[in-house]
Amino acid sequence: MTSSPCVEIVEVGPRDGLQNEPEIVSLDNRLALIERSIAAGARRLEVASFVNPKRVPQMAGAEDLIARLPRRAGVTYIGLVLNKRGAERALETDIDELGAVALTSDTFAGKNQGQSSEESVNIACEIVERANSAGRSASITISAAFGCPFEGEVAPDKVVAIAERAAAAGPREIALADTIGVGDPWRVKDLITKVRKALPQMPLRAHFHNTRNTGLANAYAAVEAGVRTLDSSLGGIGGCPFAPAATGNIPTEDLVYMLQRGDVSTGLSLDALIDSSKWLAGMMGKETPAMVSKAGRFPAPNKNEHKSTAA
Amino acid sequence: MTSSPCVEIVEVGPRDGLQNEPEIVSLDNRLALIERSIAAGARRLEVASFVNPKRVPQMAGAEDLIARLPRRAGVTYIGLVLNKRGAERALETDIDELGAVALTSDTFAGKNQGQSSEESVNIACEIVERANSAGRSASITISAAFGCPFEGEVAPDKVVAIAERAAAAGPREIALADTIGVGDPWRVKDLITKVRKALPQMPLRAHFHNTRNTGLANAYAAVEAGVRTLDSSLGGIGGCPFAPAATGNIPTEDLVYMLQRGDVSTGLSLDALIDSSKWLAGMMGKETPAMVSKAGRFPAPNKNEHKSTAA
Repeated sequence: MTSSPCVEIVEVGPRDGLQNEPEIVSLDNRLALIERSIAAGARRLEVASFVNPKRVPQMAGAEDLIARLPRRAGVTYIGLVLNKRGAERALETDIDELGAVALTSDTFAGKNQGQSSEESVNIACEIVERANSAGRSASITISAAFGCPFEGEVAPDKVVAIAERAAAAGPREIALADTIGVGDPWRVKDLITKVRKALPQMPLRAHFHNTRNTGLANAYAAVEAGVRTLDSSLGGIGGCPFAPAATGNIPTEDLVYMLQRGDVSTGLSLDALIDSSKWLAGMMGKETPAMVSKAGRFPAPNKNEHKSTAA
Repeated sequence: MTSSPCVEIVEVGPRDGLQNEPEIVSLDNRLALIERSIAAGARRLEVASFVNPKRVPQMAGAEDLIARLPRRAGVTYIGLVLNKRGAERALETDIDELGAVALTSDTFAGKNQGQSSEESVNIACEIVERANSAGRSASITISAAFGCPFEGEVAPDKVVAIAERAAAAGPREIALADTIGVGDPWRVKDLITKVRKALPQMPLRAHFHNTRNTGLANAYAAVEAGVRTLDSSLGGIGGCPFAPAATGNIPTEDLVYMLQRGDVSTGLSLDALIDSSKWLAGMMGKETPAMVSKAGRFPAPNKNEHKSTAA
C-alpha cells in the first residue's frame, strides 16, 4: 500500500499450462487462448516449446502455431528451447524470444532434458548467445530453484552460482522457477534477495505453481522482494507431472485480483480474464483450479467498466 | 528465515468449517474430528456455536457436544456467541472460552445476527464482561474486517475504532476476520500494523478464507506483520455463504506446510493432519480444497518420523 509498482505478467497457459494437461488441444484452440489472453491485456506470452513432439504431443506443431500467431504492436512471444536442435528450430521461425532452461539437479536435468545440471547451464548459455547473435532476445529459467522432485532441497547458493553463470551469457532476464510447487514465501524472499544482491542489474522473473497452495503467497513475497515479472496461466491450468493430483501454474485471474487489490498495476483486465477463463474451462471440458472466476470479484464490478474492458 | 517465531493455530473446522457445509455431520463425527485434530497437535479449537439450531442446524446440540468433549491438559475450547442468550447458554456449559463477534457493517450485522454494527460491538463487549465475571476467557472477532459482502470496502480506521472499543472490554485477544475471503496481503499487513499501533499490548488473531486464492498469502502477511495466532480448518472445509462456489477456511495442513517450510513452529504434525484430512474427506463423502494432502509433502517424509507423529 506504500508504493504502487507495476508487475508484468507472462501468460504461460499456452505452453506450461497446456503442456501439462492430459488433453491435447487443437492448434485453433491454442491460438484462440493466445488471442483471448492478448485481448485481456497480456503483452508477453509463452506459446510454444521446441521439443520432440513424440515426447510432448501437447506442444506439437510449434512452427505452424508461430506462423499463425497474431502480430500485434507491443506483444512478444516466447518459445521454450532445451537444446541446440531446439534453438535451430526456434531461430528458423520468427519467435521473439527464446526461453532456455537451466536445472539445479543432475537427476532432474537428466530426466527432463537428458543433460547434467552443469550441461544444462552450459547449453542454456549457448542458446542465449546464439539467439543474441541472431538478433533475438533470450532468457534463462532456473528450474527447480526451490526444490527438486528427486534430490529434495536445493541450496540457495547453488542457485545463485547458476544465476551468475547464466547472467554472463547476456540473457534479457533470469527466471527463478518453483517447477514442482514446493516453495514457501520465506524461501522465495530469501533466494530472490540473494540473487538480486549477486546480480543487482539483472531483471528477475519468478514462476510459481500452486501445487501446495502457497503459489500466491510466493508471488506476493516475490513482488515484495523486488521481482517485477511473474508467470501465470489463465485458469491455473497445467498440472505437475510429479504430483498427479496437483494443480498447475498460479492462475492469472487470481494473481491479477490479488495484485489489483494491492494497488499493483498489471495492465490486464480482470473481467476479460474471468470471461476467458470460463471459455477455457468449457473448451477443456473441465473445471479449472482458478478461484476468482468462481467466487466473483470484490468489490462487485461496475457495469460500465465491465462493458468497456470486455469489449 | 531471519527469525523462527511460533504460531498458534486455532482449529476452526468443527465450527466455522462444518457450519458452512451443506451436510449435517453427526455429533459422533464432530467429536471424532475434534479428537483427530487434538491428536495432530491442535491445542485450541473452535467447536460450537450457541445459535438457534433452527437457523444453523449444522451446529445443533452445542451443549451435548461440549458435555462429551475430551478433556486434555493444555487443550482449550471456544464456543461462538452472538448475543446474550448465547452467552447464557455458553456459561451453563463448561466451555473454556466465549468467542464474541463484532461486525463492521450494519447490513452484514443485520443479516448475520439481527443487530447494527454498533449494537454488535456493544453486545460483544457485554459478552466479554459477562464471561470474565464468570471466570471464563473471551475473545472478540471483528468480522468482515477486510470487506463486506453487502457494503463493499471497509475502511481500516473503522476497524481500528472497533478494535479499540472491543479492547476496552478486556478480551484475551482480538481477531481480524476476512469472513468473505476478499483480503489481499498488502491490506492485511496494513490493517494489522494499524491495529497493533493502536493496541500494542493486545494479542491479535487472524482468520482467513481462501475464497479468492489469497488465503495463504494473507496468512503469511499476517505472520510477517506480527500476528502469532491463526485460524484454519482441516481440509479447508467450510464454504462461503456469499459465494456458493467458493472454498472455505484456509486449510490447516496447507498452512502448517507453509509455516514449517518457513521454519515457523506450530506444534502440529503435518503427517497426522494429512491422515486426518483424508479421513475427513471420506467422512464428508467429497474432496476437500486442501492441496498438500493431494500433492504430498516436500521433502518426502521420513518413514520413522511418520510413524512417531502419526501414533
